[in-house]
Amino acid sequence: MAQYSAQLDGLFVALADPTRRGVIRRLGRGPMSVGDLAGEFPMTLPSFMKHVRTLEANGLIRTVKSGRVRTCILNRERLALVDDWLAEQRRVWEERTDRLESLLTDPKENPS
Amino acid sequence: MAQYSAQLDGLFVALADPTRRGVIRRLGRGPMSVGDLAGEFPMTLPSFMKHVRTLEANGLIRTVKSGRVRTCILNRERLALVDDWLAEQRRVWEERTDRLESLLTDPKENPS
Repeated sequence: MAQYSAQLDGLFVALADPTRRGVIRRLGRGPMSVGDLAGEFPMTLPSFMKHVRTLEANGLIRTVKSGRVRTCILNRERLALVDDWLAEQRRVWEERTDRLESLLTDPKENPS
Repeated sequence: MAQYSAQLDGLFVALADPTRRGVIRRLGRGPMSVGDLAGEFPMTLPSFMKHVRTLEANGLIRTVKSGRVRTCILNRERLALVDDWLAEQRRVWEERTDRLESLLTDPKENPS
């Protein structure tokens, strides 16, 4: 549970940046070399590489080196953790709505 | 678009903390006073208030003062922005899958 929470911390930090979200979006269309990918973002290569490393450290992308080319690949499964967290919140809300409905429709459920 | 991106930055930063995610989860069960809510988290009230202010600044919760009691209320609509962003990524992946399928099933689509 603590590990899941720490993973969510890292994921949300990684997603809190427009360049990193842009990389995720771009890689959704398919794998791409770091060089080609960097060309789509207006910043220096060292700055861009920091974003790539943050995404990689949090498991959102992986990179594979072949010769002199490093290719970035999106790890969609990792984004599913965010989906799961949102689904968990919805379950809490729905339980509340169900409780409120049962109070309104069945007065015996209401202890007051 | 720049505003949407800035909102996402703020939302993801706000979600990148276990206490703030805990507050969102707790408020999913219904509104709660700051005092009662703070009692559920092992930290000083000033530290807790910083988290409340971050959530409020990013629109994830709102607070209403009545007399001496400040009540926190979850703003579910705000979390929907995160849902929307995830849905947008899925659309990009699905378009890619559709393209790959059409290449495999209809050779005329393949220009090479």
